[in-house]
Amino acid sequence: MHRLGNMRLILRLEIQNTGSIFSYIATAIGATGGDILAVDLIQSRRDVVIRDITIGVENRAHGDRVIQAVTALPGVKLVNVSDRIFLAHLGGKIEVTPRVQVKTRDDLSVVYTPGVADVCRAIAEDPNKAFTLTIKRNTVAVVTDGTAVLGLGDIGPAAAMPVMEGKAMLFKQFADVDAFPICLDTKDPDEIVRIVKALAPTFGGINLEDISSPRCFEIERRLQEELDIPVFHDDQHGTAVVVLAGLMNAARVVGKELSDLKVVVCGIGAAGIAITKMLMLAGIKNIIGVDREGIIERGKKYPSNPMWQWYAENTNPENRHGGMAEAIEGADAFIGVSGPGALKIEHVKRMAKDPIVFAMANPTPEIDPEEAEPYVAVMATGRSDYPNQVNNLLCFPGLFRGALNCRARQINDAMKLAAARAIAAVVSDEELHAEYIIPSVFNKRVAEMVAQAVEAAAYESGVARRERQPQPTQTRGGDD
Amino acid sequence: MHRLGNMRLILRLEIQNTGSIFSYIATAIGATGGDILAVDLIQSRRDVVIRDITIGVENRAHGDRVIQAVTALPGVKLVNVSDRIFLAHLGGKIEVTPRVQVKTRDDLSVVYTPGVADVCRAIAEDPNKAFTLTIKRNTVAVVTDGTAVLGLGDIGPAAAMPVMEGKAMLFKQFADVDAFPICLDTKDPDEIVRIVKALAPTFGGINLEDISSPRCFEIERRLQEELDIPVFHDDQHGTAVVVLAGLMNAARVVGKELSDLKVVVCGIGAAGIAITKMLMLAGIKNIIGVDREGIIERGKKYPSNPMWQWYAENTNPENRHGGMAEAIEGADAFIGVSGPGALKIEHVKRMAKDPIVFAMANPTPEIDPEEAEPYVAVMATGRSDYPNQVNNLLCFPGLFRGALNCRARQINDAMKLAAARAIAAVVSDEELHAEYIIPSVFNKRVAEMVAQAVEAAAYESGVARRERQPQPTQTRGGDD
Repeated sequence: MHRLGNMRLILRLEIQNTGSIFSYIATAIGATGGDILAVDLIQSRRDVVIRDITIGVENRAHGDRVIQAVTALPGVKLVNVSDRIFLAHLGGKIEVTPRVQVKTRDDLSVVYTPGVADVCRAIAEDPNKAFTLTIKRNTVAVVTDGTAVLGLGDIGPAAAMPVMEGKAMLFKQFADVDAFPICLDTKDPDEIVRIVKALAPTFGGINLEDISSPRCFEIERRLQEELDIPVFHDDQHGTAVVVLAGLMNAARVVGKELSDLKVVVCGIGAAGIAITKMLMLAGIKNIIGVDREGIIERGKKYPSNPMWQWYAENTNPENRHGGMAEAIEGADAFIGVSGPGALKIEHVKRMAKDPIVFAMANPTPEIDPEEAEPYVAVMATGRSDYPNQVNNLLCFPGLFRGALNCRARQINDAMKLAAARAIAAVVSDEELHAEYIIPSVFNKRVAEMVAQAVEAAAYESGVARRERQPQPTQTRGGDD
Repeated sequence: MHRLGNMRLILRLEIQNTGSIFSYIATAIGATGGDILAVDLIQSRRDVVIRDITIGVENRAHGDRVIQAVTALPGVKLVNVSDRIFLAHLGGKIEVTPRVQVKTRDDLSVVYTPGVADVCRAIAEDPNKAFTLTIKRNTVAVVTDGTAVLGLGDIGPAAAMPVMEGKAMLFKQFADVDAFPICLDTKDPDEIVRIVKALAPTFGGINLEDISSPRCFEIERRLQEELDIPVFHDDQHGTAVVVLAGLMNAARVVGKELSDLKVVVCGIGAAGIAITKMLMLAGIKNIIGVDREGIIERGKKYPSNPMWQWYAENTNPENRHGGMAEAIEGADAFIGVSGPGALKIEHVKRMAKDPIVFAMANPTPEIDPEEAEPYVAVMATGRSDYPNQVNNLLCFPGLFRGALNCRARQINDAMKLAAARAIAAVVSDEELHAEYIIPSVFNKRVAEMVAQAVEAAAYESGVARRERQPQPTQTRGGDD
């Protein structure tokens, strides 16, 4: 069932055109446990045929065994090997395309010199017109330094590109937001802040991504203070928004009030802290944080970690001490952003009635969902092969869509809360179920509803720059 | 004939549906000199009709007079005004689009997590794979600080965006190069160099644009030294390449050897110096530079301007003194990148037989082309409304296409020379004519031929990173 690591190889083989070689090939692939998914004839000559054989394998090592078995056969020559993932990345995943075509000299004089000078002059006179007359209106920078990419850690800016390109694709496809990857070859927070500030004129928003903790806190805070466009670290707040949405619906499933929940957050890094703040924002009062050293205790000093210091002062109202066993006693919900094994079955048994468990460590959750199943009321993970996947993709496209629509100056708490409520509300009372608290990422209503809710919250909280009810406008000069 | 400043307004009018109001409107527009180009019916109600009237006007002030005249009429209400140039810019001119669609959960796992991790890991292990597995292969940054935009000067990064977006459109449409505008909110050369270096992992090339002199020299030089991708300041070298191409063909028209030409370059700024170097590279030995202070003299010291110092040491072999009158005596060609009035008829009369005049000051050339016509053999300008327009668009798309194709580490002299020769060669012997020395920017063969020539020159000069004749490859892992 867990074939997360599954991949497809495409072997292009030159096969001697004699007898039944193909059946030997099929047998060899089967014997190594490979799964023939498709066979295509590429070329047929008198002496040889060239075929593409698509094979499902468990992982790269398994793929290598399949290739060895096939190439060991007489009369078979390997032309090349590709796999579906690499093929999908060849040449990159995004492109920059004109919105209008330049067909004639006259067109050229409109979009480029000399006509463009009028537009430049209009923006120089009124910088706000950049929002109507340039891509700023719809464009987000996806900024990383490549220091905390997926589970891979500090792999650098070039290797981070495929993730940022993927994110840009999703922004466009899910919410018609134009996003461009900015992968920075520096790890210095001062430098990153300076660079992003200098780049800001082009963009209507900044999505920070995969920047390691604690640098991500400072970078985000300083950029938020110094820029007049939204700056949003998705790994923190995107996760927090979706967790809150899920917890809202989990509380509905078990018939408890959200604000009454006792919640244990496990893994007090960037995501854990953002989740905690989000839950507090939604009215949850009893939160206990647990990290490798145990419970974050009230009154204890954490001089080397200012975020833990904040955590100690603002959570754990019962002032519990100890580890997970002590924290989890009577808890209504466990929220894990830590690692495999952090939650045991005996912990779950000590939780309050109808336990809610969000085990989001990737790729291996804090507790095996199948083992936990008999003991929990609602379970969510970060994985797509179980029900209730907590996936940031539910949040960021719609969130930025809403922020861009109203030219928000920032993404504030009210907007994040509105996004969480909108995601939760996509699941109707009739649909709501322990295995359906979080909508599918492919549910088109999610981004629409998030965008609307976020835009409305921006207007209400006074961070929208655009006039709420635009009058019939003079588009000349780009007023809007 | 010179309606460079012409523009079109579109007036949306709400018109009382009584009698012949429209004829009054038409009369009023005609009386102000406006030209009705089109009338569209947008909505018709019992009492009013709404019409869009497209009107050709000379310039903005003229447009305002037309609007005043129309809105003064009883029964006419102005709903809005737009003009074609501003309409074409609404929302910006480019977008960032996925090259592959994400339709299913399975697709998502290929282009994003978890599949993308394999691709990230492959690049982390071998950074060269960024050229096959990311947009680096095909993507250029169009970098400006907004200090020397068109004829507008230092209008800042936000106001420079429409030009950079226009450039990105042209890159894509003319040579399938993906380009993205990077408009920097800093004028500090150190900072600009640091930022562009930090951004470089995403890009396969850097096009510097509209950066003021002398900062542009230092920024370009330092980036060329410190980056392993091409860095090209288009305002300098793009212009120089197209001027050389034009001069090659002008020499063909008048039957002189290129290398024998005596050339006066007028305006010794960034473009004038780049042109001079390009002409020297092509074998031209006798070049005299003239600026506002007169001829740049051999042996004279220019301590405050290192570029002029270089110029003094490397040009003016006859060591002439004085101004334009002294420089132009017996010259075969005048190349102007200065301002209106720099070249007089009496200067042209003192040139050698069959004078070649490139008067490229914009929008008003150094000499009126119609006045000069009886005295020159070949004339070129920077304008689209005369024959022989010197337009960088002939160079930059194909040049970067060629450089990206072979993953060039730089754009060197050999590649620029190859580009100039390719542009010149588009005009066949049969087509060659005093009024056709430079091909049309809409001639599709230009970018193709430039790209091929530049790529070949990159291989020959050893700056191409890609294997010249790729063998059948293992695309798995992104080898190429």
